[in-house]
Amino acid sequence: MDFKNTIENRRSVNFFDPKKDVSDRLLREMVELAAKAPSGFNIQPWSLIVLRDRDSKMRLRQHAWEQEKVTDAPVTMIVLADMDGWKLENAFAEKNFNEMIKSGAMSAEQRDWFKETCTSLYGASEARSVAFACKNTGFFAMALMLAAKSLDLDTHPMDGFDIDAVRKEFAIPENYWIPLLLAVGYFQEGKILYPAKWRKSYDDIVIHFDK
Amino acid sequence: MDFKNTIENRRSVNFFDPKKDVSDRLLREMVELAAKAPSGFNIQPWSLIVLRDRDSKMRLRQHAWEQEKVTDAPVTMIVLADMDGWKLENAFAEKNFNEMIKSGAMSAEQRDWFKETCTSLYGASEARSVAFACKNTGFFAMALMLAAKSLDLDTHPMDGFDIDAVRKEFAIPENYWIPLLLAVGYFQEGKILYPAKWRKSYDDIVIHFDK
Repeated sequence: MDFKNTIENRRSVNFFDPKKDVSDRLLREMVELAAKAPSGFNIQPWSLIVLRDRDSKMRLRQHAWEQEKVTDAPVTMIVLADMDGWKLENAFAEKNFNEMIKSGAMSAEQRDWFKETCTSLYGASEARSVAFACKNTGFFAMALMLAAKSLDLDTHPMDGFDIDAVRKEFAIPENYWIPLLLAVGYFQEGKILYPAKWRKSYDDIVIHFDK
Repeated sequence: MDFKNTIENRRSVNFFDPKKDVSDRLLREMVELAAKAPSGFNIQPWSLIVLRDRDSKMRLRQHAWEQEKVTDAPVTMIVLADMDGWKLENAFAEKNFNEMIKSGAMSAEQRDWFKETCTSLYGASEARSVAFACKNTGFFAMALMLAAKSLDLDTHPMDGFDIDAVRKEFAIPENYWIPLLLAVGYFQEGKILYPAKWRKSYDDIVIHFDK
């Protein structure tokens, strides 16, 4: 699908057809397409908990305002953002650093510089760590929604959940923020989709401040 | 351009051709395509400061590790994320709420519910406000990078800058987080682009925790 059509046709779909499954193959394709998203220093601080069976989705739904789409969608994801993702003690950060050495993008001598830089950018305060995790995972989640649409899948990103209760229910460690839940499946034929919501124009978005 | 090609061909490009400009028309098309990105309650807490003239870009570059791409790119954007974007005192939040009433997605009686819900989700702590602003602006920024590529433009998202100094230099109010800078232009022919960086696989991304 053409990019323009993909972004214009992506809608947050409230009603999923519970009878239309998403195959493992298709889900894998969607996630690996989205994984091409960029991230600061290529750290990719994102992870997914993928829920398919009704029991797991019910466990989530009770902490997500009892939204029916959580259980109607064949796949509902808990999207995780690792606030410690930049630390070299983290296996993926270490792997990424070594891959950058291999490709010539970084040298082994830059290890201390990398550590210090990430610490000052992402570790200087709680707010910095949250911003790092949520911004990059925002890149990935947007890519997930567009990748889904390009494969004729529908999605719905959700903020309506109790972050502390979901953390407890799924034993999610403290280093992960939970920026959103994402329902994935197919729009249920016969249901009504509201017209696309109002969006800010270019002139609304571009601003400046006088000194 | 096909979505798969768009996401696979998008690269963070270190070298921009300073002689190849980006027209206002093209920039507007790119931003308005990206503005189709979703956001929690459609709040769209994103804004852009668009820098084109060399003087403004030099003022930014001095606080951005003296990265040459800041001035070489014909357009460099300061991407802003409004941590107060959900407050109904905010003109865009008010406009959005009224548009939702008009379209039937919300009723006027839900005003208090909307205020309380947003306050509990996004205003309960500094971390919540930062997460709200940076996640949604992350959606928008990813859409910007892909929209650019679909229009044959190249981009480079940057974390390497002094957030406090940039805030001061451009008189950016405290309610905005600055999640990234984004250079926009055309890759300079003749320069070498490293091979695409390593990415996590599906099996790396999907995790779960035992209770």
